[in-house]
Amino acid sequence: MSKGRVTRARVVEDAIKLASVEGLAGVTVGRLAERVGMSKSGLFAHFRSKEEIDVAILEATIARFAEVVIAPALKAPRGEPRLRELIERWISWENDEALLPGGCLITQASAELDDRPGKARDVVVRAQRQWYEVLARAVRIAIEEKHLRTDVDPQLFAFELQGLFLAAHQAQRLFQDPDAFARMRRAVDTLIERSR
Amino acid sequence: MSKGRVTRARVVEDAIKLASVEGLAGVTVGRLAERVGMSKSGLFAHFRSKEEIDVAILEATIARFAEVVIAPALKAPRGEPRLRELIERWISWENDEALLPGGCLITQASAELDDRPGKARDVVVRAQRQWYEVLARAVRIAIEEKHLRTDVDPQLFAFELQGLFLAAHQAQRLFQDPDAFARMRRAVDTLIERSR
Repeated sequence: MSKGRVTRARVVEDAIKLASVEGLAGVTVGRLAERVGMSKSGLFAHFRSKEEIDVAILEATIARFAEVVIAPALKAPRGEPRLRELIERWISWENDEALLPGGCLITQASAELDDRPGKARDVVVRAQRQWYEVLARAVRIAIEEKHLRTDVDPQLFAFELQGLFLAAHQAQRLFQDPDAFARMRRAVDTLIERSR
Repeated sequence: MSKGRVTRARVVEDAIKLASVEGLAGVTVGRLAERVGMSKSGLFAHFRSKEEIDVAILEATIARFAEVVIAPALKAPRGEPRLRELIERWISWENDEALLPGGCLITQASAELDDRPGKARDVVVRAQRQWYEVLARAVRIAIEEKHLRTDVDPQLFAFELQGLFLAAHQAQRLFQDPDAFARMRRAVDTLIERSR
């Protein structure tokens, strides 16, 4: 990588942490420049606009999610084991304090950008749709493998899983509930059991 | 009401709409003053700080929620009818475009403030805890009335309902999915049926 690319990657890495806690709105050019020890104009040599910073943050986060959650889980055996591996890695992702001190940044950005049209919102929408598709496909395979009943609706199942994750994310961040993800796991078990 | 109180109430009403779409961060003193046709210093005669504006917005929203969702639902017959009335009124609340053009402001503010300690966050935490308690109590009464099984966990049931609402809110705002709340209703039906 060129020196410019290395610097850019380092800035983005730091911006992800900041955005995880403060939201994308908290990542101002001034604050980011201060954190990484650059001048504002130095930062603008790497990113032309605040929107470009937001898009870079989101794309790097989504790539990392694909790398640490989706790709390894797809190596688990087809059916319920793969579905459970996706869910466990998703929970680990949310709880990776080193990378995401404020929890899943895509979840955070989804709430923040939902009513704000633009490139950053488009990136989040695409990522969330793909994630729904990954979950629904894992459910479909679990049906094919006869781990789940044929009358289970994969889209609705993915919607229910997403809901449990959002409720756990909220309970952990807002109530600082240490049992938030234990509760999610219990609800996931119930959901899977009644779908066998 | 004094003229001052009337003005304050009118400003808060308008600020709720703005915050529903833009988040509390979008309600700057400058934008709010412009929207309601006042000077910034005129606005500061009613609110001493941005935090006081945020708290006033949240408290007014929570009071309205209690008035249009909780109080009327508590008049429905004990058990499943009351639980369903709470859920239906919750969905209507989210979809009240006149009051909340960007959907439930408490949900929005929960994501926005989750990592930001302060008075506004405290108000949101209290409101969300109370809502969980209202849902769990309705489930508990449904168990007493023998509409739901005695092994149903009211806290976990409330958590699952909250998750379905959050997933539907996200699908409606982020994906502009017109079936978001139809999906929530289907999932609620399944949840209630398997708990009988």
